Amino acid sequence: MGNLLIAHGGGPTPVINSSLRGVVEQAKKQPQIGGIYGARFGVEGVLNEAFIDLGAQSEAAIRGLSSTPASALGSCRRKLKSDDYPRILDVFKKYDIRYFLYNGGNDSMDTCNKIAALAKDSGYEMRVIGVPKTIDNDLMHTDHCPGFGSAARYVAVSTLELWKDVQSLPIHVCIMEVMGRNAGFITAVSALARKSEGCGPHLIYLPERPFIREQFLEDVSAWHKRAGGVLVVVSEGLCGPDGAPLSDSGVVDGFGHKVPGGVSQHLSELVIRELGIKSRSEKPGLLGRCSIPLQSPVDRDEAYQVGALAVRAACEYKTGFMVSITRECEDPYRAGYGLVPLSEVANAERKFPDNWINARGNDINPDFIKYCAPLMGAALPDYIDLDLTPVKKL
Amino acid sequence: MGNLLIAHGGGPTPVINSSLRGVVEQAKKQPQIGGIYGARFGVEGVLNEAFIDLGAQSEAAIRGLSSTPASALGSCRRKLKSDDYPRILDVFKKYDIRYFLYNGGNDSMDTCNKIAALAKDSGYEMRVIGVPKTIDNDLMHTDHCPGFGSAARYVAVSTLELWKDVQSLPIHVCIMEVMGRNAGFITAVSALARKSEGCGPHLIYLPERPFIREQFLEDVSAWHKRAGGVLVVVSEGLCGPDGAPLSDSGVVDGFGHKVPGGVSQHLSELVIRELGIKSRSEKPGLLGRCSIPLQSPVDRDEAYQVGALAVRAACEYKTGFMVSITRECEDPYRAGYGLVPLSEVANAERKFPDNWINARGNDINPDFIKYCAPLMGAALPDYIDLDLTPVKKL
Repeated sequence: MGNLLIAHGGGPTPVINSSLRGVVEQAKKQPQIGGIYGARFGVEGVLNEAFIDLGAQSEAAIRGLSSTPASALGSCRRKLKSDDYPRILDVFKKYDIRYFLYNGGNDSMDTCNKIAALAKDSGYEMRVIGVPKTIDNDLMHTDHCPGFGSAARYVAVSTLELWKDVQSLPIHVCIMEVMGRNAGFITAVSALARKSEGCGPHLIYLPERPFIREQFLEDVSAWHKRAGGVLVVVSEGLCGPDGAPLSDSGVVDGFGHKVPGGVSQHLSELVIRELGIKSRSEKPGLLGRCSIPLQSPVDRDEAYQVGALAVRAACEYKTGFMVSITRECEDPYRAGYGLVPLSEVANAERKFPDNWINARGNDINPDFIKYCAPLMGAALPDYIDLDLTPVKKL
Repeated sequence: MGNLLIAHGGGPTPVINSSLRGVVEQAKKQPQIGGIYGARFGVEGVLNEAFIDLGAQSEAAIRGLSSTPASALGSCRRKLKSDDYPRILDVFKKYDIRYFLYNGGNDSMDTCNKIAALAKDSGYEMRVIGVPKTIDNDLMHTDHCPGFGSAARYVAVSTLELWKDVQSLPIHVCIMEVMGRNAGFITAVSALARKSEGCGPHLIYLPERPFIREQFLEDVSAWHKRAGGVLVVVSEGLCGPDGAPLSDSGVVDGFGHKVPGGVSQHLSELVIRELGIKSRSEKPGLLGRCSIPLQSPVDRDEAYQVGALAVRAACEYKTGFMVSITRECEDPYRAGYGLVPLSEVANAERKFPDNWINARGNDINPDFIKYCAPLMGAALPDYIDLDLTPVKKL
């Protein structure tokens, strides 16, 4: 017997609340779980003893979590210091927390791993389980991460719509910037919007390959000659061959971090200046991680399942694991679930596989499309094309 | 008897194809209309005699236009020169075009007006009708413009989702940039996302008021102290008190036009530098004018009706008019349709009413919300909020 506490870490996703729903609905079924608490703003809420009672919420509110964006509990980006950990354990003891679930990415899994070890070492009986979450899809030892499928659907549909726009008014090189500082998965998804050869997106640049300025200008110029309107999709994290970010604003924030300068705007200015071609940039930014209309139903369901499974695993005396997703069947797609030791995912970072990028580093190979397509949960919208056969000239 | 030709001018909207569907389906019912042609890429298609046969398209394709973004015909931004007009009349005569519909904004209505006058003066019997279209909502003598309601829905839902994100991870000042270079209507729509006092968007800046740097920094700083996470929405067209664009990239494009520098990025750098607060920018840009998942059903239906009415008006011997929308009933909202002389809308520009902006120039008055709400076609998504009552501290 004891209480359960769940906390969110890092940036929200369109389905992190769906995992929360899975946790709460599963926890209510477990007789050994007493109170079901949520920490406000991640580990900060743990340190401050700022909890809400998830067991006391209305059923409608818990159901509504599945279609509510961002984190309903609040999240944080606080990196814990070594003296924060004993304090956390004290709080757990004070509130009789015997089940702790942490829903986050690499950094959060590291925190989770340390908490699990600390509890074990100090002889306090509790179960600590990580619930995966990241739109970047960069956690190790899971086929993919909850949050990725929805971010993917957002990027694929947005790219398709942008291509329809650029195609119908082909007067510029349009450069869209996509999140994922170090991992190119969501940028790569834009390739799924290409209906046939010659359609946009024409060029795709991931952060896993060094960005070669001269090749980029050559490629843009060639596509402009061929298509008039050109659609380019780039990761916000592009770096040059020297490893330095392609664009930084020259501004340093309060924490001393360099502020990225908006790589799409930087590149569109480059196109105008060097090629004399009209260009513009789009940067949906955070909008790509909070869209409910473009949520993937597969992603939403999987997010629910990983939350529910985390509770069941904790109740089965498991601790120090993260829930993982496996691909049980390719066609029709079917997911399975497992557990991986937190120590194997903590702080490790999965990169976009190099063999899924083409030789020139400006496009994606079909293997990725096969990997990604089912995760978006539904086919892309079937926008029509008119029959453009010209009327015979008189 | 004679043929009908329709062309698109200027930037696409999420419902310009819905107007096209209205035109085609209505034209098929009119025995006096022979061929139904569409010009490829606006007036360029007229000059080049590049037409497609809209009467020969499948019914499914025509139906599918309502849920297909951008312009299915193609559009252009070509400003006609005086010697282009006689050429256009020659093409009309050659193809026996007796009904010409031009679907566009202010510039297109000016073109349309000149074509109508030229046909009349030269004694060539034809009817010329303008079909309104612009996400900017800046056409005169119509309650609102087809395209605005869908762009409004995009901005309102995006602002709401962004606020959920910022609220759940309140670590920065988030500045979203919205289209509408000279008219603030779609930027103002963001106010509809504010569920209650204190919720985002906290600050809204339209291009109709000069942007005062010091006031902006004061306002951001005050909201940051109060809320932690701050959401600001700005128009891409903000200018300082001297009338100069707030931010230009220092780059001049092939046509000699100054390229805007991304006002949201400029302002977020200003916040970091002057206030030492973490800040970031989002610029969905063109995505705001091509989203089908966020299309307004009211807007889609009205766009269909203005297309159909343009055909009926032309068949009733009307020429030199633009179809307008009137507000027949406020509650429940019901639209009516009329005709206004093209001469009265050509080149005129409707500004956001000054009395709908607050005194400090950083927010919108409730009258605008009442005006705008029904045009979005449905209530905003009902995202849930958990009961955040703190668990009693032990």
